[in-house]
Amino acid sequence: MADKRIYAFGAGKADGNATMKELLGGKGANLAEMAGLGLPVPPGFTITTTTCKAFHDAGQVMPDGLMDEVRAAVGGVEKQLGREFGKGLLFSVRSGAASSMPGMMDTVLNLGLNDEVVKLLDNPRFAWDSYRRFIAMYADVVDGVDRKLFENELSAAKQRTRVLKDSDVPAEELRNVVGLYKKVYKEATGEDFPQDPWQQLDRSVFAVFRSWNNNRAVEYRRIHRIRGLIGTAVNVQAMVYGNLNDNSATGVGFTRDPATGENEFFCDVLFNAQGEDVVAGIRNPDDFEQFGQRMPEVARQLLDVRDTLEKHYRDMQDIEFTVEDGKLYILQTRNGKRTAKAALRIALSLVSEGLLTEQQALLKIEASSLNQLLHPTFDPDAEVHVIARGIPASPGAAKGKAVFSPEAAETLSRDGQNVILIREETSPEDIKGMAAAQGILTARGGRTSHAAVVARQMGKTCVAGCSVLDIDERRRRMTVDGHVIKEGDVISLNGTSGEVMLGDVPTVPAELSGDFATVMEWADRHRKLGVRANADTPGDARKAREFGAEGIGLCRTEHMFFEEDRINKMREAILARTDDEKQRSLAKLLPMQRADFLGLFKVMNGLPVTIRLLDPPLHEFLPRDPDVQRAIAKDTGVPLLNIQEAVDAMHEVNPMLGLRGCRLAVVAPQIYDMQVRAIIEAIYDAQHIDIPVDAEIMIPLVGTLYELTAIRKRIVEQVDTFNQDSSGKVQVRIGTMIEVPRAALTADRIAEQADFFSFGTNDLTQMTLGVSRDDAEQSFLRQYVDLGIYPIDPFATIDVKGVGKLVQMGVNLGRATKPDLKCGICGEHGGDPESIDFCHKIGLDYVSCSPYRVPIARLAAAQAAIRAGLAKV
Amino acid sequence: MADKRIYAFGAGKADGNATMKELLGGKGANLAEMAGLGLPVPPGFTITTTTCKAFHDAGQVMPDGLMDEVRAAVGGVEKQLGREFGKGLLFSVRSGAASSMPGMMDTVLNLGLNDEVVKLLDNPRFAWDSYRRFIAMYADVVDGVDRKLFENELSAAKQRTRVLKDSDVPAEELRNVVGLYKKVYKEATGEDFPQDPWQQLDRSVFAVFRSWNNNRAVEYRRIHRIRGLIGTAVNVQAMVYGNLNDNSATGVGFTRDPATGENEFFCDVLFNAQGEDVVAGIRNPDDFEQFGQRMPEVARQLLDVRDTLEKHYRDMQDIEFTVEDGKLYILQTRNGKRTAKAALRIALSLVSEGLLTEQQALLKIEASSLNQLLHPTFDPDAEVHVIARGIPASPGAAKGKAVFSPEAAETLSRDGQNVILIREETSPEDIKGMAAAQGILTARGGRTSHAAVVARQMGKTCVAGCSVLDIDERRRRMTVDGHVIKEGDVISLNGTSGEVMLGDVPTVPAELSGDFATVMEWADRHRKLGVRANADTPGDARKAREFGAEGIGLCRTEHMFFEEDRINKMREAILARTDDEKQRSLAKLLPMQRADFLGLFKVMNGLPVTIRLLDPPLHEFLPRDPDVQRAIAKDTGVPLLNIQEAVDAMHEVNPMLGLRGCRLAVVAPQIYDMQVRAIIEAIYDAQHIDIPVDAEIMIPLVGTLYELTAIRKRIVEQVDTFNQDSSGKVQVRIGTMIEVPRAALTADRIAEQADFFSFGTNDLTQMTLGVSRDDAEQSFLRQYVDLGIYPIDPFATIDVKGVGKLVQMGVNLGRATKPDLKCGICGEHGGDPESIDFCHKIGLDYVSCSPYRVPIARLAAAQAAIRAGLAKV
Repeated sequence: MADKRIYAFGAGKADGNATMKELLGGKGANLAEMAGLGLPVPPGFTITTTTCKAFHDAGQVMPDGLMDEVRAAVGGVEKQLGREFGKGLLFSVRSGAASSMPGMMDTVLNLGLNDEVVKLLDNPRFAWDSYRRFIAMYADVVDGVDRKLFENELSAAKQRTRVLKDSDVPAEELRNVVGLYKKVYKEATGEDFPQDPWQQLDRSVFAVFRSWNNNRAVEYRRIHRIRGLIGTAVNVQAMVYGNLNDNSATGVGFTRDPATGENEFFCDVLFNAQGEDVVAGIRNPDDFEQFGQRMPEVARQLLDVRDTLEKHYRDMQDIEFTVEDGKLYILQTRNGKRTAKAALRIALSLVSEGLLTEQQALLKIEASSLNQLLHPTFDPDAEVHVIARGIPASPGAAKGKAVFSPEAAETLSRDGQNVILIREETSPEDIKGMAAAQGILTARGGRTSHAAVVARQMGKTCVAGCSVLDIDERRRRMTVDGHVIKEGDVISLNGTSGEVMLGDVPTVPAELSGDFATVMEWADRHRKLGVRANADTPGDARKAREFGAEGIGLCRTEHMFFEEDRINKMREAILARTDDEKQRSLAKLLPMQRADFLGLFKVMNGLPVTIRLLDPPLHEFLPRDPDVQRAIAKDTGVPLLNIQEAVDAMHEVNPMLGLRGCRLAVVAPQIYDMQVRAIIEAIYDAQHIDIPVDAEIMIPLVGTLYELTAIRKRIVEQVDTFNQDSSGKVQVRIGTMIEVPRAALTADRIAEQADFFSFGTNDLTQMTLGVSRDDAEQSFLRQYVDLGIYPIDPFATIDVKGVGKLVQMGVNLGRATKPDLKCGICGEHGGDPESIDFCHKIGLDYVSCSPYRVPIARLAAAQAAIRAGLAKV
Repeated sequence: MADKRIYAFGAGKADGNATMKELLGGKGANLAEMAGLGLPVPPGFTITTTTCKAFHDAGQVMPDGLMDEVRAAVGGVEKQLGREFGKGLLFSVRSGAASSMPGMMDTVLNLGLNDEVVKLLDNPRFAWDSYRRFIAMYADVVDGVDRKLFENELSAAKQRTRVLKDSDVPAEELRNVVGLYKKVYKEATGEDFPQDPWQQLDRSVFAVFRSWNNNRAVEYRRIHRIRGLIGTAVNVQAMVYGNLNDNSATGVGFTRDPATGENEFFCDVLFNAQGEDVVAGIRNPDDFEQFGQRMPEVARQLLDVRDTLEKHYRDMQDIEFTVEDGKLYILQTRNGKRTAKAALRIALSLVSEGLLTEQQALLKIEASSLNQLLHPTFDPDAEVHVIARGIPASPGAAKGKAVFSPEAAETLSRDGQNVILIREETSPEDIKGMAAAQGILTARGGRTSHAAVVARQMGKTCVAGCSVLDIDERRRRMTVDGHVIKEGDVISLNGTSGEVMLGDVPTVPAELSGDFATVMEWADRHRKLGVRANADTPGDARKAREFGAEGIGLCRTEHMFFEEDRINKMREAILARTDDEKQRSLAKLLPMQRADFLGLFKVMNGLPVTIRLLDPPLHEFLPRDPDVQRAIAKDTGVPLLNIQEAVDAMHEVNPMLGLRGCRLAVVAPQIYDMQVRAIIEAIYDAQHIDIPVDAEIMIPLVGTLYELTAIRKRIVEQVDTFNQDSSGKVQVRIGTMIEVPRAALTADRIAEQADFFSFGTNDLTQMTLGVSRDDAEQSFLRQYVDLGIYPIDPFATIDVKGVGKLVQMGVNLGRATKPDLKCGICGEHGGDPESIDFCHKIGLDYVSCSPYRVPIARLAAAQAAIRAGLAKV
């Protein structure tokens, strides 16, 4: 008997407190805390989670001496209340682990009742009703008897007495029901219902311990990825009754409005009822005003409690209470769930009320919840009919008429109509149609499919890889879940959840001023990490600045080539048989690229702009689809046979690990030459109209120092030659992506030739884990996350132990060579709060993420800095 | 004037020695060494490579004061010889860098001749001939005048005097030719041919310096991957003449027979001739016996020199010498090139002669050259007609009748004929034909293509990816380089060089006893690394033991499924719609796998056998070719549509990073279950016939601890259940491949569940470098190696800085958790000497390689241990 196994609470003091969740479970710790605060908590005690662990470690055996300690603890409660267990004092027995596991709670109420005790209670109807409830709960939790069997008996009783509601069954009939319940129990278990209260208590504690490792609980923890818990605590607490009489009540409440955050007590009360009646919503509850009218003194007490709890927890609370014959009891408190809007409001209020500092307030807001505020969103109160769920590929709420071709999208859009473009999958031919649509829905492809990438770039809502859709593009219709959607039928897409819904679902607009702006201002004051955006067009860039980006961390130049007026010139360049032909085609692209960059420089007006040179393999520009090949032949004048040959020659078994990025430039430097020339000329042009430029050229897929050295040399020569020829003052910094594991491993060498590092953690994750993201999302990735093999999707949150270790090595090695080396991250992890925390810890200079994630990143960066500061103290 | 710029040699002493190759170049260092040994070296001096570097650093300007030092050095030579420069003393001026660059040598002979000096020489014909040679060489090297222009004049002179050979042109005509040469020089350069010897010397030194960075030299170093040199040295040496008179001669020799290694002086001599005449092969040279008869005293001196050099260098030497009017001069010595057979013989002889220790002798043998001895090889003296060159995919020398279908291969083979199977590429359907053939030739696919992998496994010669072949399988013929090869025409394949040759090229057999056996015995005595083999069949295993393998480090079980009688059962299992169907199909494979393993255990008889569970993605068993799909439908009875659907569903964009290895087992464990069962039963069966078994089960593609934990648990349960059910005593160790970068990065965690690590450096290289090997071999890999971006093919020799760093991290982290963790390597690097050296350094326990590489690995491991020992002293 090493450690204390039982923690008592009640009557203004408690053995435990709120910090002991691991040991006492969340419920037990909060009961102790409230008792310690002097709040009216029904007295009781908590058996620790370590005791549960000991129970299981011993092969489901009750630890020696435990029940003796329980008897002593019961004695303590008896003394406090002046009532005796077995003579009218009843208990609840509840499980409660360190993490909340809603719906998994095992509960036995009214424990201590038997054929004798039932007669000691004041109100016979209440007494027999409590007894029958106890038998049913006990039989279920302790002996696994199906509750249906009991419900059937109650239904029969209602029929016999011709009443509709449980609460109308008269006392005499309930007494009869108790007899029938005991018969059911005996038939199911072969034993009489236990009359000894101590036996009842012993077996209930045993049952709660045992429930920790039953299949249902194990499965629940697996699905909800709850890890690291050692067991459940058991809370044994004196019963109080909101249904004792008309001077009794039960209620739940939020100390502030959980939807808006306004400082109003938000509370539902039922008179003469039990807690479960509130949750079940059988009767319409009364509000706090009505409560105050009926029980003014108790309501005053409750307002005091609300005040005490908020001051104590410094946060909005979700509470449960009961009034038993005019006396108030608090049964539970916890931080209340809230909308993003409410979270901001509450945080700001608590600061102005002096309860929180700015730093503390920022930590109370869940960064990723800000997403709710940035897009127009579907009205959470709207009724929706979800017909399918795909991969949420680009966030937003879009609705419009279904169309099945880019042409139809353009036509309807020109008539001022909103459309949703539905395709098996998209290709560069669909770009104009995508631009015309409000949202894009595809049956194939993942988060990095063409549809997803282009949609995010365009800021369009996209649901991708929705494989249950049966799309018939020719007949302009799709079938799903028994519904046939024809061209012109209205559907709605939720790009944040992946839901596809029938009809026009109402939306609410984004909110970026007021509380949001204040919180952002505070976040900027506390964060150390810079926040940039991934943006490819002036439109993206404007959005990014609107959301507070301090520069562009990644401009993907290849997206510029996919636009309709350019892709054929790009194809000509790729298909060119001679160097001359290639140069001629590229020369046509040069002014377009120059204009792209000039547009970005204008918007960013002197903020840093990091331009990544061409990254994808060239075969992405030459589809394998024979129809598209024929179209290209027609458009470009290149013989079909040549196109087919080129496509065959470029085919790769593993394009992810193939000829792309800087490898293209090493093998054939013309495209990079053109892009660099376009950047140089754009800088020159900008300077001539007095727009300051801070440009960085970034080389993708570098794996060796030699690649970077060779490409850097060529760029420097181009810049020098240009400046000589034009008396220009063009300057660029030249850096590299670190996205190949070898680059991170040899970052000390690579830093010799790099002005900056930008970690491309999308590719780095694919190579370090050996996982092709697009493939895995369709096959094993979800299963791996469900099974906990990946504790979290490594493409959403950085895999700290593997990929993160490489990133950290890369930063440390790079700075060993150049102590001031600027290091950032431009993978999608740059917008994920957990990953941003990691970026802060390893000393990155900035994160770069999609424009819509910039506010999230600003807040997450501030939280990381605040947490790190706290950790230091 | 910081460093010494000129190193003199001659007359029994020298400023430099053989260790100073970096500074003096190979030639200069050896001349100094020989002079220091007291050998009769014509005196001279070497201008250092650092002086050349200074020349280039200053923008091709002769360093201040250099020529004054040269004058002083010339004065030293004059004093030694008692002759005066400009009055008959002539010099050679030669370039010479630290690495040999044959064919890149710039040479000016007879420097110091002019219109006056030529008259001072004894023999007018010799004098004028020397002068005309000097003019031509000087004009070429110093002024870049085309040699053709001079050759034309000489040809004209031969016509005028009606002689055929240069040496028959009379003295008077040669004097005339000198005049014409001077005219040519003036026309080409605009200047008179310089008469001042000092000017000649100054400009020749300048020209040699300059030549270091001309395009030809830069290109040469790029192609031959010569790096890290700072410049060339310049050797200025007094001329001696083998063509002075009949008491003169010139010769080259090997101090032992370079083909057999026998201790015989192997020497070619031409009397009254110059060195270049020997190389040109104009006259048939005399041998040492004839030399001895004609110049007995000089021959005796030469034998002494041979003895001195061998004793001094402790190795067989390749020497050049000249006899001028009865006086012997040694012009060059270096370690002689030799065959593998000779290398063994010489190494053993030098030990028995007391010149070398065992360790030193082992270091003299190039490990990879042993390959020559293990396979029958083409007779090096045979005349061959090479028609194409492909990727050398599986070594050996194969010849036979060309066939274009597996059926033809089988038919002809049954008739006792040797055949070469020629295919566009091979598929599992070709297996029987491949087994029937002597060699396999394909037009597509690299070193890891189906053809290559299966051929290596079968020990068949294979040349793959020979893209110049135009194969017409239907018409049973191929066209290449203007030749049409029809079915039945005989061709020969060199699997070591990739050459495809016309006709039946004669071969010589392998030699594994005698010297080979002795060297292997010594190697085993000195090495610390274990050497195992990658072997999948009893045949492989026997071969491996024959070559001295101490176990099987990698048995790839998937190859077993590709055999004709099994692949359909495997396909049934993959295509099964229900779990039951799948189990039934796998049950049919179980006894076959059990027999496979039992066969291996029998051959290995208690040596460790590491069995890797299924690794490749399942779609490798279900080809995308519609014809093959139809055949499968017919053979398995599965509807074609189902097959097509299954193939489509399994299609992956990047299969390398897809659903394979342990991921398959996590998603659907049935196949691993069957394989584990087969291993368990095979161990049990072996034990029952008293065959000891040391079995290891290896899990591929592990990236997280959880994968290994889950699979290990399942295997342990299977073993325990089996042992309980059968009272067996089956034991296995369970380990993991480390081939995903994340596994190496988190090896401390993974080691918790692993009994051993085996580094799969093939995949680890692909993922760490982000390079798909099969794709890259067809596209950028060669170019990357040529450009020096990869200093060496990273799939042939481990990339120490990147992949090697990960391996080392993996070993160190793994052993931090389990200090005795056994670590090996089973990628192809396991058979590469440089990689083996690395494996020794980082403390691996063993390497595993293909059976034919086992002897190479044994020697390389010994060399690594010896080198490490030397480094420590």
